[in-house]
Amino acid sequence: MSTTRRYTLTISCPDRAGIIAAVSGFIAQHGGFIVEASYHTEQEAQRFFMRQEIRADSLPFGLIEFHARFTSLAAEFDMEWHLSDSAQKKRLIILVSKQDHCLNDLLHRWRSGELPVDIPCVVSNHGDLRSFVEWHGIPFHHVEMGDKAVAFDHIEHLYKLYRADAMVLARFMQIMPPDLCRRYAGRIINIHHSFLPSFVGAKPYHQAYQRGVKLIGATCHYVTDELDAGPIIEQDTLRIDHGDTVDDLVRYGRDIEKTVLSRGLRYHVEDRVLVCGNKTIVFR
Amino acid sequence: MSTTRRYTLTISCPDRAGIIAAVSGFIAQHGGFIVEASYHTEQEAQRFFMRQEIRADSLPFGLIEFHARFTSLAAEFDMEWHLSDSAQKKRLIILVSKQDHCLNDLLHRWRSGELPVDIPCVVSNHGDLRSFVEWHGIPFHHVEMGDKAVAFDHIEHLYKLYRADAMVLARFMQIMPPDLCRRYAGRIINIHHSFLPSFVGAKPYHQAYQRGVKLIGATCHYVTDELDAGPIIEQDTLRIDHGDTVDDLVRYGRDIEKTVLSRGLRYHVEDRVLVCGNKTIVFR
Amino acid sequence: MSTTRRYTLTISCPDRAGIIAAVSGFIAQHGGFIVEASYHTEQEAQRFFMRQEIRADSLPFGLIEFHARFTSLAAEFDMEWHLSDSAQKKRLIILVSKQDHCLNDLLHRWRSGELPVDIPCVVSNHGDLRSFVEWHGIPFHHVEMGDKAVAFDHIEHLYKLYRADAMVLARFMQIMPPDLCRRYAGRIINIHHSFLPSFVGAKPYHQAYQRGVKLIGATCHYVTDELDAGPIIEQDTLRIDHGDTVDDLVRYGRDIEKTVLSRGLRYHVEDRVLVCGNKTIVFR
Amino acid sequence: MSTTRRYTLTISCPDRAGIIAAVSGFIAQHGGFIVEASYHTEQEAQRFFMRQEIRADSLPFGLIEFHARFTSLAAEFDMEWHLSDSAQKKRLIILVSKQDHCLNDLLHRWRSGELPVDIPCVVSNHGDLRSFVEWHGIPFHHVEMGDKAVAFDHIEHLYKLYRADAMVLARFMQIMPPDLCRRYAGRIINIHHSFLPSFVGAKPYHQAYQRGVKLIGATCHYVTDELDAGPIIEQDTLRIDHGDTVDDLVRYGRDIEKTVLSRGLRYHVEDRVLVCGNKTIVFR
Repeated sequence: MSTTRRYTLTISCPDRAGIIAAVSGFIAQHGGFIVEASYHTEQEAQRFFMRQEIRADSLPFGLIEFHARFTSLAAEFDMEWHLSDSAQKKRLIILVSKQDHCLNDLLHRWRSGELPVDIPCVVSNHGDLRSFVEWHGIPFHHVEMGDKAVAFDHIEHLYKLYRADAMVLARFMQIMPPDLCRRYAGRIINIHHSFLPSFVGAKPYHQAYQRGVKLIGATCHYVTDELDAGPIIEQDTLRIDHGDTVDDLVRYGRDIEKTVLSRGLRYHVEDRVLVCGNKTIVFR
Repeated sequence: MSTTRRYTLTISCPDRAGIIAAVSGFIAQHGGFIVEASYHTEQEAQRFFMRQEIRADSLPFGLIEFHARFTSLAAEFDMEWHLSDSAQKKRLIILVSKQDHCLNDLLHRWRSGELPVDIPCVVSNHGDLRSFVEWHGIPFHHVEMGDKAVAFDHIEHLYKLYRADAMVLARFMQIMPPDLCRRYAGRIINIHHSFLPSFVGAKPYHQAYQRGVKLIGATCHYVTDELDAGPIIEQDTLRIDHGDTVDDLVRYGRDIEKTVLSRGLRYHVEDRVLVCGNKTIVFR
Repeated sequence: MSTTRRYTLTISCPDRAGIIAAVSGFIAQHGGFIVEASYHTEQEAQRFFMRQEIRADSLPFGLIEFHARFTSLAAEFDMEWHLSDSAQKKRLIILVSKQDHCLNDLLHRWRSGELPVDIPCVVSNHGDLRSFVEWHGIPFHHVEMGDKAVAFDHIEHLYKLYRADAMVLARFMQIMPPDLCRRYAGRIINIHHSFLPSFVGAKPYHQAYQRGVKLIGATCHYVTDELDAGPIIEQDTLRIDHGDTVDDLVRYGRDIEKTVLSRGLRYHVEDRVLVCGNKTIVFR
Repeated sequence: MSTTRRYTLTISCPDRAGIIAAVSGFIAQHGGFIVEASYHTEQEAQRFFMRQEIRADSLPFGLIEFHARFTSLAAEFDMEWHLSDSAQKKRLIILVSKQDHCLNDLLHRWRSGELPVDIPCVVSNHGDLRSFVEWHGIPFHHVEMGDKAVAFDHIEHLYKLYRADAMVLARFMQIMPPDLCRRYAGRIINIHHSFLPSFVGAKPYHQAYQRGVKLIGATCHYVTDELDAGPIIEQDTLRIDHGDTVDDLVRYGRDIEKTVLSRGLRYHVEDRVLVCGNKTIVFR
């Protein structure tokens, strides 16, 4: 990934001939320099998806003007489209419970500059991680889960207050209310500690142990109102064997969870993930 | 694995102190040279499992005498035990349908000497692969599946006729009768083209495509009377992406199926797989 | 990969703005339907690489007319370019020694239709594999290596006689003459049984065993006049451990060799590999 | 791994029949309960290696008495042997430069209890990481590298002062003096950011990029007086492609470095690594 300022244009529209020519023609006509370009046609849905990164300094105008000029082309092809600016970092709220391996991993990637986001606050239903979060200079909010409706209202309130772009459930261990999931579709990212669709719900490592599988996995996905059934962004697996106890699976699993969540999050943050029905196109 | 002649002793018994000492003492007392030794305690079941490979030429007696002498020790520890001789190759009947990638792979491993087994015959519900099988000098039996009861009686008859030790379902694509599964528990080995327990039953690659998973897999397992739910011997996964069609998954999948089946089969043939409930201990 | 007839256009040229627009504009102007499109800029070399698959039936003309019409555009951007037709299968000559695992694998992929090529003949410096090759209806040529110059002249003669497009060294175990390598640059594909650049030359598994590495690998590369140093097309690795002997490494290694060669070959055959200096761009 | 207190006995001796019987007989005779047992014969060296974990509460005596009683048996078989107690945590000094991804990873594993060690101090040739280390309540020593001899004397002094058992070079980026390496053989653990033996020395990711490899790797090894050539404990690789810049390799590489170092370190700390010449036996 280049570090110069870029605009990223993502498009989804009905498939037909000439889309690439029209879009790249528009960009070329204004002298735009394309850094990275990806395309995909989803055959069943007959929809076309594309993503272009354009060097900001190669265009004679900014984001607002780009929007204005691109609108008629977008309408002609019936596009859903989105334009983002690498200079405007996405704002992620991280939700955690007591387990902090994903949080520790994400905060390191953030403070080393590897993950180009802002983290306006961390929310937890426990107080344990306050000191670690605050050492980073990030506000920590302890939200009690006694009354779930109140708690999730509070969380939504914080989301709005901090003008967040997405919520990251970094082993939050709480089921999100269905209506919240629907209202924030594509903006709540979860890490589930199994290779979905195997071992949905609670205690997936125990389930894996009982079934006697030879690999365990983790899944990063968008949260929907159906538990652990949303569009999958990223997955991975790891070999285990008969000698491994449930505790070993939990321990190994932490490493895949961290890796899979951080990769999935990076794809999301760089606008590499486009959703088509319950599936994702991930332009890596 | 050594190529000198070896006896392989596998044991399963209630866990307690002193088992290793008793068994290795017995072997040492007769001058036996242990080439490879593996142990495992299954905590929940409180059962102990072990496998020892002993150089045949280091013992002053053969298999029958070994059996006779070991019996009282085995009784003392309430052992289930098994002794095999690397000079006596296991006899595997291979069952196939029309897809021949696993068959092609297994026959190559057999004719190159990599897989130390005898293949007394190949059985298929189609005639397509006769010429290829017969080129290897292996009898080919075409069993029509019109009347399933008759067909499976025929297959069982062939199994007995050829004094086979195991049946390998190398993409046979037929559901085995429950009573056959029960009578041949631990002796029917299947390759299923998904990472079980995900995508049980028919068309797993279609199921995987629909769910939008980011890796596909294959599973080698013992067949039981519950479909695709038997003890898992070996599994593996492979990364795919949004650009892959169902046909691509089928194509990539063939490579994992071959690898996973051949590895699982090798473990079985070398007496590395011990079953505990619905799980396996695999002493690699 | 689609199975409808396609033209594949690959281009390499100095990087500048407007290339994608010009090429996709040209295609769109004739109603061409792009099935797959990939781009890459090699920063150090300041060169741009692209590959487009176009549905043949979407264009009003054939390959020859396409060539004629595209020439002026290609000249304008100083392009090296190539156009191929999926209806014209590439012709691969396979060279083997005595080990047949790669040959067995490739011939299966060929006869099952998975690898869309013609195999006009197989060449070997031993006679052992004649029967297996001829069972496939493929001519087998035994070329003695006593006088190497004569032998390689013979091989080059066969290459021309059969109008081959590439030579595949499927564990051929002979060093190719430098001038042959230079004259057939990008058309000789080798599988080396190590993770290059480690363990160049003879007996890489012995070298790996001696060094005590924890993974072994294989490398598919274009042959150049420097031994095992040509542009790498594909690689993979596999975990081993201290219990594995050199024979075990050789055995495990065969599985990676087969996979890596078949993947690399597929990329080559589908015009997915573009060479830039001593590196490859592989548009998967 | 069990969490009950255990003694771990590791042995290396000339190979012959009866070793397992003698050792397991000794343990059984005192009622010792073996939790985990591993064996290996190094064929070339004709040496036998074993590792046994025994439940401490199953023996009627402690570590000192165990030593006293085992000595004559050890002498009989000419054993090099070592006995450790899980209740006595190993003491690791971590050396870092400016890059903190490995440090961040190790400190998290330490504070979560996953890595059962004491970390008496962290040493760095830069001051940047002081605050992060001290937040953990761990002393931080900034050692200037201006005069290398003085600096390494200082480091050795700290090692002795803190009664450390091993030094961990967590991306320390300094070459250790040969005599220090020799005096602390098997006690200095390094993470090298390539798949050794490829890309020894400085800037391995640049070397990997230039060579055009398709996977990158990392290696955890004991430091010897030959640069990056010591016994390898653990390695892993990760797929990259032509689109990845050197910066991308560096970023991806951090994830393998962390994983490989933490795994290698765990093996070392649990006495799973036995050295034989320039190779390791790792009883996982």
